[in-house]
Amino acid sequence: MEDYARQIEDIGRRARAAARQLALCSKERKDSALMAMADAMEAAEAKILAANARDVAAAPGFGLNAAAVDRLRLTSDRIRAVADGVREVAGLPDPAGGVIREWTRPNGIKILKVRVPIGVVGIIFESRPNVTADAAALCLKSGNACILRGGKESFHSNTAIAAALATGAVNAGLSADVIQLVPFTDREGVRLMARMDRYIDVIVPRGGRALIEAVVEHARMPVIKHYHGVCHVFVDSSADLSMAEKIVINAKCQRPGVCNAMETLLVHRDIAEKFLPTIAASLSARGVELRGDERTREVLGSGVKAAVEEDWTEEYLDLILSIRVVDSLEEAVDHIEKYGSHHTDAIVASDEAAARKFLSAVDSATVLWNASTRFSDGGEFGFGAEIGISTDKLHARGPMGLEELTTYKYIVEGAGQVRG
Amino acid sequence: MEDYARQIEDIGRRARAAARQLALCSKERKDSALMAMADAMEAAEAKILAANARDVAAAPGFGLNAAAVDRLRLTSDRIRAVADGVREVAGLPDPAGGVIREWTRPNGIKILKVRVPIGVVGIIFESRPNVTADAAALCLKSGNACILRGGKESFHSNTAIAAALATGAVNAGLSADVIQLVPFTDREGVRLMARMDRYIDVIVPRGGRALIEAVVEHARMPVIKHYHGVCHVFVDSSADLSMAEKIVINAKCQRPGVCNAMETLLVHRDIAEKFLPTIAASLSARGVELRGDERTREVLGSGVKAAVEEDWTEEYLDLILSIRVVDSLEEAVDHIEKYGSHHTDAIVASDEAAARKFLSAVDSATVLWNASTRFSDGGEFGFGAEIGISTDKLHARGPMGLEELTTYKYIVEGAGQVRG
Repeated sequence: MEDYARQIEDIGRRARAAARQLALCSKERKDSALMAMADAMEAAEAKILAANARDVAAAPGFGLNAAAVDRLRLTSDRIRAVADGVREVAGLPDPAGGVIREWTRPNGIKILKVRVPIGVVGIIFESRPNVTADAAALCLKSGNACILRGGKESFHSNTAIAAALATGAVNAGLSADVIQLVPFTDREGVRLMARMDRYIDVIVPRGGRALIEAVVEHARMPVIKHYHGVCHVFVDSSADLSMAEKIVINAKCQRPGVCNAMETLLVHRDIAEKFLPTIAASLSARGVELRGDERTREVLGSGVKAAVEEDWTEEYLDLILSIRVVDSLEEAVDHIEKYGSHHTDAIVASDEAAARKFLSAVDSATVLWNASTRFSDGGEFGFGAEIGISTDKLHARGPMGLEELTTYKYIVEGAGQVRG
Repeated sequence: MEDYARQIEDIGRRARAAARQLALCSKERKDSALMAMADAMEAAEAKILAANARDVAAAPGFGLNAAAVDRLRLTSDRIRAVADGVREVAGLPDPAGGVIREWTRPNGIKILKVRVPIGVVGIIFESRPNVTADAAALCLKSGNACILRGGKESFHSNTAIAAALATGAVNAGLSADVIQLVPFTDREGVRLMARMDRYIDVIVPRGGRALIEAVVEHARMPVIKHYHGVCHVFVDSSADLSMAEKIVINAKCQRPGVCNAMETLLVHRDIAEKFLPTIAASLSARGVELRGDERTREVLGSGVKAAVEEDWTEEYLDLILSIRVVDSLEEAVDHIEKYGSHHTDAIVASDEAAARKFLSAVDSATVLWNASTRFSDGGEFGFGAEIGISTDKLHARGPMGLEELTTYKYIVEGAGQVRG
């Protein structure tokens, strides 16, 4: 165990040294490193496919179902697509180095608030092996060294991809340590990483509740959680009901398995009798299971399943929708505050005053007026690339792009000024 | 103990409710509440002075020396000064509500990144009772409810001030819960606060290492540490030596007991023989004890105390200075990286290229060129008010003003758009 801790500590120390080098690299050097990393991934195709075959063979032992195995499986085409993704990141603007604000004080000192890399970013994930390349590319682009810790199901694939990326970095004259994968996939590895605030500046956990909880419990450094989305659409009494129908269907059905899909529909009582039968028919036709509160079932009939307390906090990630009739916009806001996850919530309304009230009062990363919750997304926001959607409030809130992988420092330029 | 936990939980729940109310208040309402809070403090003068007298009487039992007792002691004048400080905060611009950025996507959705209050801010401090009013005023101004936990030495004073502030808030039509003081001053109270991520969005600890460590160890929410400053001045070979002397003297002597005072002087070898005798004489004349490395003592003689390894990491907060001769700018940067606290570091140089190199390579919240480290300060930066100086990298780095007590949310306005 001590040896284990020493190994992770060593990864940390090397990442810190690599980060210092990387922070001083020009955009050109970082971009050429990204191109070299993409090339190296393609050059290592045979090795990556062989490693992936081991993961796929072991998958049933981890209890992965057919869909999960499919997400795990790599092919030549998928490797090329991932490499192309890395090349696309090279084409994006450099988030580091820009001046956020500059001003001069009466005593003549000039102050510049300048965007700089964070340093060492720890990313803990459970999902598909392409995250290894995506996350490493975004960290490198923003001038950060990264320490990745992937899931056990994709361990061999992740290892092969990380090795290829490090080779690419070295080919471009950077340290191999700019991208390192922790060679452990158990919880103890997570705990050790989380304690290492000396070397890791921030940890971004992406995964299920148990994983995120393990990070939060032990972390000594800032954590930017990518947690669940219990997203709401509130259809106000002033809503254009055909617009509401379009938005509700899109928010629920277009891609139910993602965090910005709607999980609960709140309907103003004044339009409930008119709106509910239409939307229920439309949702049912798309295979959505409805779970309604008392008043919803009064309108739709007891054929609709009764929602229980747990339904209001559940992220179904599936074709299931809980529905509640509320007396007022205030009640909708209170429901969202009580049961929501502060991720993404929308109002459909024609009354601007009502909409403004909702947009102010709902304390979520993204609040929308007359648009689908599915727009709460880095790509849709035009960020070019996305680490994920932060459910935390500080540093990065909501869709997290390259800029959120930077911080700032103050540069003060004087001519010998001292304080009086 | 369970009762204790329940009491703190109750404070948290009430703070959350108050924060929701406060987030929706106009600038005018917040400012008039601040004026009412200042008035209420002055109206409660007799009670505050009586409470303070209890603290002062108990001070020797806590081992406070005369200077510390003096900092603890309140008078009519001091109470008026603190109240005036609260009124000044009312005069500052509202940091919340502003649009940081807005843009429209090709599909017509408009995205606004808007500054909003954080929610509930926990402030843990050990120092003087005026912090109670200062911190509460800054939190209220930025639209945050606050939970304060002060030190045992000023417990009665803090309690009386907090009660007066809450009365002022109520007089202005706000909830008394916008400002609450935890009625416990032991470490268990800190631990319980730190676990309460459900109700507290961020904790700002201001105090010694043991206190900050207790918060970091237990905290589940983001922590913005206000930690020590091991600040350096590096005098480059290209420095104007009379400017360097002025800056070094100011950085060390103008107010040695604060975190942005210089603790270590790094001198380029090429100017060491010329600069060291002058600066040593000048510092000694001001009562500064010098602790030099081998090469410094070669120049200044063995009358200068030898610096030991611990000297490079120590925050003296006193008229003591460690001095080291370095071979190059790179060695200065490496020293700062190894021993510094990433708080504030300065270079004195006439060579712009050297200065730029230093400013880029030193990973500290504030880096200065030809100016005293003492400028790393919210007031000197023009922030109007200051919570403190963050030694953390994320969310708030360096001088932390009102703006750093806000976060942002995304407001998306559409006309019925859905994702294809």
